Amino acid sequence: MKPKTTLEDLNLSLGKRTRLRRLLYRYGPGNGTLLLLPIDQGLEHGPVDFFANPDSVDPTFQLRLAKEGGYSGIVFHVGLAEKYMTEFAGEVPLVLKLNGKTNIPSDEYAFSPLTGSVEDAVRLGADAVGYTLYVGSPAQDEDISQFAEIRADCQAYGMPLIMWAYPRGEAIEAKGGRDSLYAVDYAARVACELGADVVKLNFPKFEESGAKELPKPYDQMRLSPQEAMEKVVKSAGRTMVLVSGGGKISDEDLLEKVKLSMEAGVTGLIFGRNMWQRNLNEALKMAEKIKRIMSEYGT
Amino acid sequence: MKPKTTLEDLNLSLGKRTRLRRLLYRYGPGNGTLLLLPIDQGLEHGPVDFFANPDSVDPTFQLRLAKEGGYSGIVFHVGLAEKYMTEFAGEVPLVLKLNGKTNIPSDEYAFSPLTGSVEDAVRLGADAVGYTLYVGSPAQDEDISQFAEIRADCQAYGMPLIMWAYPRGEAIEAKGGRDSLYAVDYAARVACELGADVVKLNFPKFEESGAKELPKPYDQMRLSPQEAMEKVVKSAGRTMVLVSGGGKISDEDLLEKVKLSMEAGVTGLIFGRNMWQRNLNEALKMAEKIKRIMSEYGT
Amino acid sequence: MKPKTTLEDLNLSLGKRTRLRRLLYRYGPGNGTLLLLPIDQGLEHGPVDFFANPDSVDPTFQLRLAKEGGYSGIVFHVGLAEKYMTEFAGEVPLVLKLNGKTNIPSDEYAFSPLTGSVEDAVRLGADAVGYTLYVGSPAQDEDISQFAEIRADCQAYGMPLIMWAYPRGEAIEAKGGRDSLYAVDYAARVACELGADVVKLNFPKFEESGAKELPKPYDQMRLSPQEAMEKVVKSAGRTMVLVSGGGKISDEDLLEKVKLSMEAGVTGLIFGRNMWQRNLNEALKMAEKIKRIMSEYGT
Amino acid sequence: MKPKTTLEDLNLSLGKRTRLRRLLYRYGPGNGTLLLLPIDQGLEHGPVDFFANPDSVDPTFQLRLAKEGGYSGIVFHVGLAEKYMTEFAGEVPLVLKLNGKTNIPSDEYAFSPLTGSVEDAVRLGADAVGYTLYVGSPAQDEDISQFAEIRADCQAYGMPLIMWAYPRGEAIEAKGGRDSLYAVDYAARVACELGADVVKLNFPKFEESGAKELPKPYDQMRLSPQEAMEKVVKSAGRTMVLVSGGGKISDEDLLEKVKLSMEAGVTGLIFGRNMWQRNLNEALKMAEKIKRIMSEYGT
Amino acid sequence: MKPKTTLEDLNLSLGKRTRLRRLLYRYGPGNGTLLLLPIDQGLEHGPVDFFANPDSVDPTFQLRLAKEGGYSGIVFHVGLAEKYMTEFAGEVPLVLKLNGKTNIPSDEYAFSPLTGSVEDAVRLGADAVGYTLYVGSPAQDEDISQFAEIRADCQAYGMPLIMWAYPRGEAIEAKGGRDSLYAVDYAARVACELGADVVKLNFPKFEESGAKELPKPYDQMRLSPQEAMEKVVKSAGRTMVLVSGGGKISDEDLLEKVKLSMEAGVTGLIFGRNMWQRNLNEALKMAEKIKRIMSEYGT
Repeated sequence: MKPKTTLEDLNLSLGKRTRLRRLLYRYGPGNGTLLLLPIDQGLEHGPVDFFANPDSVDPTFQLRLAKEGGYSGIVFHVGLAEKYMTEFAGEVPLVLKLNGKTNIPSDEYAFSPLTGSVEDAVRLGADAVGYTLYVGSPAQDEDISQFAEIRADCQAYGMPLIMWAYPRGEAIEAKGGRDSLYAVDYAARVACELGADVVKLNFPKFEESGAKELPKPYDQMRLSPQEAMEKVVKSAGRTMVLVSGGGKISDEDLLEKVKLSMEAGVTGLIFGRNMWQRNLNEALKMAEKIKRIMSEYGT
Repeated sequence: MKPKTTLEDLNLSLGKRTRLRRLLYRYGPGNGTLLLLPIDQGLEHGPVDFFANPDSVDPTFQLRLAKEGGYSGIVFHVGLAEKYMTEFAGEVPLVLKLNGKTNIPSDEYAFSPLTGSVEDAVRLGADAVGYTLYVGSPAQDEDISQFAEIRADCQAYGMPLIMWAYPRGEAIEAKGGRDSLYAVDYAARVACELGADVVKLNFPKFEESGAKELPKPYDQMRLSPQEAMEKVVKSAGRTMVLVSGGGKISDEDLLEKVKLSMEAGVTGLIFGRNMWQRNLNEALKMAEKIKRIMSEYGT
Repeated sequence: MKPKTTLEDLNLSLGKRTRLRRLLYRYGPGNGTLLLLPIDQGLEHGPVDFFANPDSVDPTFQLRLAKEGGYSGIVFHVGLAEKYMTEFAGEVPLVLKLNGKTNIPSDEYAFSPLTGSVEDAVRLGADAVGYTLYVGSPAQDEDISQFAEIRADCQAYGMPLIMWAYPRGEAIEAKGGRDSLYAVDYAARVACELGADVVKLNFPKFEESGAKELPKPYDQMRLSPQEAMEKVVKSAGRTMVLVSGGGKISDEDLLEKVKLSMEAGVTGLIFGRNMWQRNLNEALKMAEKIKRIMSEYGT
Repeated sequence: MKPKTTLEDLNLSLGKRTRLRRLLYRYGPGNGTLLLLPIDQGLEHGPVDFFANPDSVDPTFQLRLAKEGGYSGIVFHVGLAEKYMTEFAGEVPLVLKLNGKTNIPSDEYAFSPLTGSVEDAVRLGADAVGYTLYVGSPAQDEDISQFAEIRADCQAYGMPLIMWAYPRGEAIEAKGGRDSLYAVDYAARVACELGADVVKLNFPKFEESGAKELPKPYDQMRLSPQEAMEKVVKSAGRTMVLVSGGGKISDEDLLEKVKLSMEAGVTGLIFGRNMWQRNLNEALKMAEKIKRIMSEYGT
Repeated sequence: MKPKTTLEDLNLSLGKRTRLRRLLYRYGPGNGTLLLLPIDQGLEHGPVDFFANPDSVDPTFQLRLAKEGGYSGIVFHVGLAEKYMTEFAGEVPLVLKLNGKTNIPSDEYAFSPLTGSVEDAVRLGADAVGYTLYVGSPAQDEDISQFAEIRADCQAYGMPLIMWAYPRGEAIEAKGGRDSLYAVDYAARVACELGADVVKLNFPKFEESGAKELPKPYDQMRLSPQEAMEKVVKSAGRTMVLVSGGGKISDEDLLEKVKLSMEAGVTGLIFGRNMWQRNLNEALKMAEKIKRIMSEYGT
């Protein structure tokens, strides 16, 4: 098991430290790991993601799951936060997602405009904010600038900043795709360089068939999944890593992913569809299983 | 009959609650439903919409209809509000439309720039503002950003915010068109995620011939009109739904649309051309019929 | 004779009312009509417009014409106003034109950037400002936004706002051209919706050969020139209409245009080249003739 | 000899009048004419312009020439001003150039971004600022806007504003080129309309071969060089004209250009490469000759 | 040996002078030269640059090298500075890099958005900031504007400003490439004109095969490497020159480059990959050798 980045490593201001410590030690697993429940898919993909479990269209479902399942926090855009959080105030920490977009137009020039502000996060009692940076997008100029302003606001308000570091855009597709080790590894470093406190990353994938499109020397690298994830964690440096769930996979694969990720030194997990695309009981059971694994990786 | 979103559900600040309660309970049907009269077609389509009823080119016509017909409010851009509302002040609530455009250029990259501000709405004594978001337009970056700023202003001034959530742009046309259930359903959720208090939506349409263009699983869904509307209301969550009238249809179809919509749980109706493209007496009679139906769906 | 929009109709703030009343009743014809002399052609077309009357290249020529001919006001960009108005201060009211462009590049994406501000107008003692909106241009997003900011400044400073509502751009050319009734009628309504106090419009033209390009039902409409102008005045609603002169025409045609326009209910005229492309004596005589006609249309 | 625009004509505020009078009467020829030395070619063209006279790469060379040659002022971007002016403070007036660009990319969409501000000019003790407007460029929207902001700052700080009015861009090339009378004449008027105090123009050129590309009636005009320049001066109106030197020409041609220009009523000259692409002694001698001619055109 | 630009030449404000003197005389070689260690490659190229020396992925490696090797300073983006500098505070001066980008999309329209601010630099105790200007890029408008704003902030806060002056973009590639003398020479002058205090440049290269693409008279120039560098230093004028290392080269070539550069009058060196792509001992030894050469070029 690889040592993982701790709160001490991040050298945070008092406000950031206070909020992030709360997420790490007062909610969720409580042992310095993070388990977040994201519900921004309604904006990103439309209501279609809720079809597998019709109850999930009502964010109260996810809030109950987060509360009863003992999550570290829930992720909402400002609209859902304002409309649904009140009855869970102080019980489920809020991570306010600050930018997003629909998937209706092409994402060749992927960019997510702001939907809320750090001031909104403060006003709503959030303990962190989320920002999607499309690493490598042709729109990176605008994206990096916008991120830098959010980072400055976070610095001013002592608000922890989680970057959804998503390789995206026509150039990344031509260099092996968004989930390659090349792409995820680069994204991890970008998050560290630009000043994210935490980075959400996909688990890197390797496909022999696409290997020749990868930039050197990634085209020659043959790492086990865990080695690949360890490498990514290293590139993220003093930025805590959250592993993203992506589309739904089998329970065995999910738990394997959790195990490998934690073993590789990540700080936590942020699984959405894999959790709330099942009924509450099953979701709670799965949360329990995940947390049991996470309990072995405290700091 | 499906339960509908109530004022309590929205968890509003005092200013928003005061103004929206006024619209819901002190004007119009007065039973928690909304009946709005929109007059922004002169900007959106030009004077041509007034040809069917020449009196309607003078906004005083619609103001009389709104007052005598007992509407919950009238929708104007800033120019009409400033020039025509004075004699109806306090008698017909104003919904200030904040953005718009002409239909002269192509709407492949549909975007509506601001024509007024939330400050204008406050100054003019408005009880809500309207904003058109072209859901899925290639210009969504700019649109979502601009909406987010208006939302923040509404939050600051306690002004209820109604989103005209219109699927539009080249991508939406390629995925089954602007009035498909896919499009309207997605638009409903976007309004909720981004923080609209109320959303104006078209009644979803289904055409077998175009079904194969729809994203999965909408291409396989065969819902009755009411089921489709119920689904949309659900996707809108704690955002009140207003059903839009669109171009003129027969009286029977109109009343059927009212009935189906109310049955499906919408909060109200926002019919323009279907109302004021007839003379005052006929329009008042029709308003009466509509309100009779609405009277059965109070909260 | 059609009744025309009066100062009372406009429901103005004290500052706007003070300045506009001055233009309507204290200068020029003084009977509630307006006769303006525009000199922005040097920017819009270059010095070529001054060739027909070489004296006219010096704005002092037009200032003398405005003063001796008893005009309601003169229209300048900030440069000419600052350099030439001093000796006519208080004798010739200033309408400060706030945006403009050269005609050197293509006007497919027509847009006029700001050349001055409402603050400049206040500083220079102007009684109104002018803004060119290219109705239907592909650049309408930027144009409507920019207009909305100027409108807000005018509201703040009590400065009357005259919109040069010019249909323009590739889309308008494809729909029958900039001077069609369709285009001018739409422009008139846009001015009213967006909050102009006064709108400058071209006299609509009809050409049988191009009729089929017009949007319905304009393609079928066959109105006399006066009927067309009356229709436009109606679409402008509570926005005073000024008829533009355009390029030079015969004296008979000009006086006929004045008569028809006033008869149709416009508030005034804004003729440039038709006035100052002749020597001072002839221009003064023509001004006299025009004012004689206008004197019959007071309010 | 044509009468030329005087300080009185410009109707300036106290700050502008103070600074411009200093340039006109306390430095340089001192008789109401202007002789400026521009050194912005290092940015506009690169170091290549300094090859003919290697000493000229060091701006101290031009500062010595300006001081010993009795120039009215020297033109620098902020970098050169900050680094080289100190030892010449109060001896050589500074004209701070506020925008510029490299000539590396194509200038089809010519536009010069800001390199400094009017506040910089005030801080550095400058007596005027320079702004390049690419008249007729497809980027004119941005350019006119940016100029208008600089103009407003100049108005606020009492800083004289010199416009480098350069016809440029694909449209101007298609209409006879940047140095045609059509182009220069239009540029002169634009400077006056937009509120420049002084305008820098190229001497208009006529080439029979390209005449047919010129807009009417310039295509038919056959003026002597002096008549052409007189026409331009007239179009500039109450804006002082400076004639630009352009690339190096023979001494006879240069002095002829000076004579013709002054005779045509311009206020001064702004020659760069023609002056400092020779050694100091030769440059001083040439400056002497030029000033001798200028001495005959005082006001 | 050519004389080099000294602190006195730069005519700096007290704040800039204080900070730059510290870098020149209190840290690093301490004799008026500069030796900087840049670590922004993780953003610019991704983690791939760290593969040659896996320890180097952790910025603590470079910080140790900078401290033990006696560097004048280290270059970080805000993220690395915040996360890794604390334990080296006051021991290794910080140069905060303010803009950057990934190399994933094409750099035809190269532009680096801001990642931090001068205020960040002040907050973090930095002694200088770095800004990458892509000289000649089609995006130069935006780049020069953005630089001008940073320059103004540096002026306000007394913060030395180092320009990474990188010729880049499609036009530069068509004119002989980014490392030609033409390109580097132009870049040097741009830095001086725009007001950089220090400029980072590549060592100019000459390739006979590409000479004919170079603009005149560079296509005919045949200079020794040292002569070329001397020329560049001259074009930079009163802007201190730092020579960039670029990709890894042999130790002999590296030391030769140092010798030639210092001999040509540059102020210092900024070598990244050539230093930290080896283990700490070797890197320290190489730093020692470089500093031995630099010790002969003090001021």
